[in-house]
Amino acid sequence: MRILHTKPAEDGFYMPAEFAPHEGCLMIWPERADSWQYGAYAARKAFVRVIETIADSEKMTVFCSARQYDNARAQLSPRVRVAVLETDDAWARDIGPTFVVNGAGERRGVDWGFNAWGGIYPDCLRDAAAARRMCDLLDDDCYDLRGFICEGGSLHVDGEGTALVTEACLLNENRNPALDRAGIERVLCGALGVSKVIWLPRGIYQDETDEHVDNICAFVAPGEVVLAWTDDESDPQHALSAASLAALEAAVDAKGRKIKVHKLPLPAPVRITAEECEGLDRCEGEPTRTPGERLAASYVNFYIANGAVVMPAFGDPMDEKAQSILQGLFPTRKVVPIPARDILIGGGNIHCITQQIPRV
Amino acid sequence: MRILHTKPAEDGFYMPAEFAPHEGCLMIWPERADSWQYGAYAARKAFVRVIETIADSEKMTVFCSARQYDNARAQLSPRVRVAVLETDDAWARDIGPTFVVNGAGERRGVDWGFNAWGGIYPDCLRDAAAARRMCDLLDDDCYDLRGFICEGGSLHVDGEGTALVTEACLLNENRNPALDRAGIERVLCGALGVSKVIWLPRGIYQDETDEHVDNICAFVAPGEVVLAWTDDESDPQHALSAASLAALEAAVDAKGRKIKVHKLPLPAPVRITAEECEGLDRCEGEPTRTPGERLAASYVNFYIANGAVVMPAFGDPMDEKAQSILQGLFPTRKVVPIPARDILIGGGNIHCITQQIPRV
Repeated sequence: MRILHTKPAEDGFYMPAEFAPHEGCLMIWPERADSWQYGAYAARKAFVRVIETIADSEKMTVFCSARQYDNARAQLSPRVRVAVLETDDAWARDIGPTFVVNGAGERRGVDWGFNAWGGIYPDCLRDAAAARRMCDLLDDDCYDLRGFICEGGSLHVDGEGTALVTEACLLNENRNPALDRAGIERVLCGALGVSKVIWLPRGIYQDETDEHVDNICAFVAPGEVVLAWTDDESDPQHALSAASLAALEAAVDAKGRKIKVHKLPLPAPVRITAEECEGLDRCEGEPTRTPGERLAASYVNFYIANGAVVMPAFGDPMDEKAQSILQGLFPTRKVVPIPARDILIGGGNIHCITQQIPRV
Repeated sequence: MRILHTKPAEDGFYMPAEFAPHEGCLMIWPERADSWQYGAYAARKAFVRVIETIADSEKMTVFCSARQYDNARAQLSPRVRVAVLETDDAWARDIGPTFVVNGAGERRGVDWGFNAWGGIYPDCLRDAAAARRMCDLLDDDCYDLRGFICEGGSLHVDGEGTALVTEACLLNENRNPALDRAGIERVLCGALGVSKVIWLPRGIYQDETDEHVDNICAFVAPGEVVLAWTDDESDPQHALSAASLAALEAAVDAKGRKIKVHKLPLPAPVRITAEECEGLDRCEGEPTRTPGERLAASYVNFYIANGAVVMPAFGDPMDEKAQSILQGLFPTRKVVPIPARDILIGGGNIHCITQQIPRV
């Protein structure tokens, strides 16, 4: 693995869309006790279902701590590769490399700077070091973009020159305070090989990532997105989704196309229970969740595998509606809903715990 | 990766000879302070030369601790893959999987039991766990032979049904005291897919592995071995080598062939200096080396790469003679001598720190 100090775009590399073919997918085995209740047993069950569903159509590599290796190996099917790598938590989307490709069949990783989403946990050095080590394992050269704080979940691309981000996250002064909007756009264009950045103002209410785009809006095809939506004007989410809709309606993509928006309904608010909170360690002496707290549940946080769309389900009447909408948008893939409350408690969802490796 | 509880031979698998084609090679970055003097700086220089020499003709994967990752990555060329794996020391031959193949293009690993060569260091759980994790990384299924204590350096095969071992090691009661010679032969035949085990009585004088075969005798072709040799009858090694020669002259291999023995001269005794000892941590409060102690130096401890024979050199007049003999025996490979005193101090040599991955 070479560590490169140029920018992907200047070398002819770009990030392909998630719906382009994958060679495989990276995930991390959950263990952190202030993220995953009662020893992560419930979370692991949900992770295993996600892993095995993706493994039906992609080569899965799951990273875990040395302590958890034998257990992870026992829980996962033999077709899944398990590799030991110490991390601080299990968010492969945000701490893994963002992969870029060129027209000559080469793939490289982008190693962003990582500060635990602006500082959610104090010690994030193992997470910050993970992307480079994952690239090394895959034998992919790796761009050093550690000077720019960024998480994979804070961006989406259409593979045709357009990136989608939120102002709430990318402009937050807890990430890259020295850069203004134009400066951030320059970095994203250089790193992702895009020429156009579409900015949504906000994401999902109470999303502790500072409202990552991957929880509210995702490309389903070039020029087409799904947007998390509620018609309930009394829900604080309504104004956030409406602002994003307005931004999308006003935007054109890198090819000059208007954006077609498919509204994806939100489930009824999901609130953490006292019993669930009781099973979480304190972080820096403080609770990470309080009973009754609304979690940032959204069906948009799905993963597009080669053969499936792996969608979070919440045991809500809207589950079926969301599944049906996504199935209409992804006719060549099977939409697979997976009960994801135990992932959501950790602070993200299926997209956040996965990282695709594009096929070259 | 599947964990298999059958035996390789019953599944049609066997260990190919080291001179058969390799897909790559595994090594481990040295770090342990009671093995490698003065912070392992000198040892790492020697390891790097071994790694890069092999990398000229094989894909190298080097495992290192998380602490050492950035340093190892910086010292090694980009063509070398660096993967984080915590181990207790750096002897890939002894703690890595022994690879077996079948006629259908499949490869699997054998995960032997490991007790640190009968107990050289007390805490060897990370070494004992390493082989399985290496197989997982390579996506090779893995035979669970942990019930049998064995190190890769304690055996050689010709790839045509014959294994070569020493009684000093395999019959030592610190390994498998419940098994007699016939019982050990049965295990070796089942694990390596051989039908004949040739027993040499002894190995190299002062070899703390209990005289691994890979330091005294190695196949260079089916029916042909090199044997570490000294004509100096006052050297305690003379009787050991002579006993092995007698055993080889009395033996036939699995195909009924007599064994052709090429004597490979030993260097003059290599003794550790007080200054070198000073740079080693204590193990369990005791020195691991004492000044003037003779080390188990032998040219036989070479690695047969696809394009090279990587041979230890000791700055001894015999270096050239050994190189010349090996070059005659390996006409299609370049014999590359590498100054190896700083590897030898750790207790082994180039063969001990490498583990080939057969090509299928």
